[in-house]
Amino acid sequence: MKKLAIGIDLGGTNLKGVVLSATGEKIFSARIPTESEKGGQRILGNILRLTEILLDKVGSKDEVLGLGLGTPGFIDQRGIIIGGAENLPGWKGTDVFSPLKKKFGLKITGGNDVTVAALAESKLGAGKGLDNVICFVLGTGIGGGIVVNSSLYQGAMGMAGELGHIVVETGGIDCNCGQKGCVERYASGPGMVQLARNYAITMVQDSSLKKIIIDNSSQITSETIYVFVSKDDPLALKVHHKACEMLGRAVGIIINIFAPDRVVLGGGVMMAGPVITSAVTKYAAGYCFADMFKHCEIVQAELGEESGQLGAALLVFDQFASSQLRL
Amino acid sequence: MKKLAIGIDLGGTNLKGVVLSATGEKIFSARIPTESEKGGQRILGNILRLTEILLDKVGSKDEVLGLGLGTPGFIDQRGIIIGGAENLPGWKGTDVFSPLKKKFGLKITGGNDVTVAALAESKLGAGKGLDNVICFVLGTGIGGGIVVNSSLYQGAMGMAGELGHIVVETGGIDCNCGQKGCVERYASGPGMVQLARNYAITMVQDSSLKKIIIDNSSQITSETIYVFVSKDDPLALKVHHKACEMLGRAVGIIINIFAPDRVVLGGGVMMAGPVITSAVTKYAAGYCFADMFKHCEIVQAELGEESGQLGAALLVFDQFASSQLRL
Repeated sequence: MKKLAIGIDLGGTNLKGVVLSATGEKIFSARIPTESEKGGQRILGNILRLTEILLDKVGSKDEVLGLGLGTPGFIDQRGIIIGGAENLPGWKGTDVFSPLKKKFGLKITGGNDVTVAALAESKLGAGKGLDNVICFVLGTGIGGGIVVNSSLYQGAMGMAGELGHIVVETGGIDCNCGQKGCVERYASGPGMVQLARNYAITMVQDSSLKKIIIDNSSQITSETIYVFVSKDDPLALKVHHKACEMLGRAVGIIINIFAPDRVVLGGGVMMAGPVITSAVTKYAAGYCFADMFKHCEIVQAELGEESGQLGAALLVFDQFASSQLRL
Repeated sequence: MKKLAIGIDLGGTNLKGVVLSATGEKIFSARIPTESEKGGQRILGNILRLTEILLDKVGSKDEVLGLGLGTPGFIDQRGIIIGGAENLPGWKGTDVFSPLKKKFGLKITGGNDVTVAALAESKLGAGKGLDNVICFVLGTGIGGGIVVNSSLYQGAMGMAGELGHIVVETGGIDCNCGQKGCVERYASGPGMVQLARNYAITMVQDSSLKKIIIDNSSQITSETIYVFVSKDDPLALKVHHKACEMLGRAVGIIINIFAPDRVVLGGGVMMAGPVITSAVTKYAAGYCFADMFKHCEIVQAELGEESGQLGAALLVFDQFASSQLRL
């Protein structure tokens, strides 16, 4: 019985790989530079090289059930990058699966990097042991991942999970997706920073954060904002509450749709941790049915930067293993 | 190999039953009064009686894989009605599965009536042959059903799919769920009627529908409104466009979340048919990503009142059959 899976996470800087056992144990890991600036074919070459490194560590392919890839953008069932990977020039259009299959004779699968990370959180992290887990990843945008009936749900052409573009304020802030009031405009890192800039102009109260923004004395990020939240700065608190209320609305919609076991909040913004989960929990309660809300805990992600490669490996078990081998 | 499934749909007036083959063919059907006014135990007795009638028609239990029940409200995995069936006094708290198992020795499953109807639409109706189908049922409220990866998704305690309470207008019309601006307040039958009443007061244009409402000369329903839509009545058109825009917003959110193959609109309001699907399609385009929108057709339900019992029977194959037996 094949009991190992290879997972590779394609990041802008590094390719991170892991060999995972069917019981969720990390056996080996490795990383090499992505060299994304050298184009799609170089990225593909590096994926092949990393696979070789990992297979060498395993020793024999006989134990390996398959390889999973997490990539920015959308990858279809044939393994072709069909869009959405704007930060990787030349990556769109690349056929990823064929060369991997040809060279290694392995079963290959893949998904959006955020989506597969959600699978990792649901199997090994904050949603461990639960059937229905929805993840919001709060970073430069807001991505999402949907695990239902214990399997990753990817939708048509792997495009499901655009949770950042749930509209939470009718006629709200313009979003680059063409809508107004998407939750991403409030609760992503740049969304929070923009809220802070907007409020800084009109706020009359004293605020150290306001001073920094108006003096333009240093670059601020969501981390800066949460440093000031911890100091009870009124501008920072105003941003925090607006962002968490908007995110709470989106979480409420998700709870009403999925009646999930858990909603997991991850991504760079979640460095701030419990102050966000507790505020979002408070706000979400007002935007969904009480029975579903009571059943669903809203928690912080646990796996951090490893979630991508772990999720990619788990996708192999999710798609190719008999049910006994699934976590 | 067991190739038949029994499906029973519990309605306020009738219990409707069907014996379905694994290829989706109706073998037998029957209906008896629910006698819901006589309380939960009487309803249960009638379900047992209808099962007996259907099994008699089949002749032998050996061919029957199991029995599925579609019921108003929420039924948990143990088969207990845990809530939401307000129109059936005494039904909440009833243990449905145990007596059925005891009497007939069959595998039993169940789900919310709207939810299982969505399974029928996805397998035998407007979503036939597609993996990911989301249904909105527009009636006195708005219910929903979610079929993903070709299986019905029911969520915790069977509560998933409250699509009627997606908020589509911040600070909009008060909903009895406690939120404001739920899509149900605009695009359900009573929602449309209320919109018409509200607009009738302020509208200055001539309108035959306005006259009927202001004279209070007859009871209006969504059907009345659509009779006047077909006559280009300005009030009716205003209600139609508002309802369809609000529903389009909710459909857009659903498309961004699920990247589904199809969104199916059913329920009594959909008697009006294509005029609604085409308007909702037009509006939804503005509320989701173009690639996902292009992939997803928005269509009218096909199965009508039979969808409940068919879905209940299909749930048996969905849950108990080996994958070969699934449609």
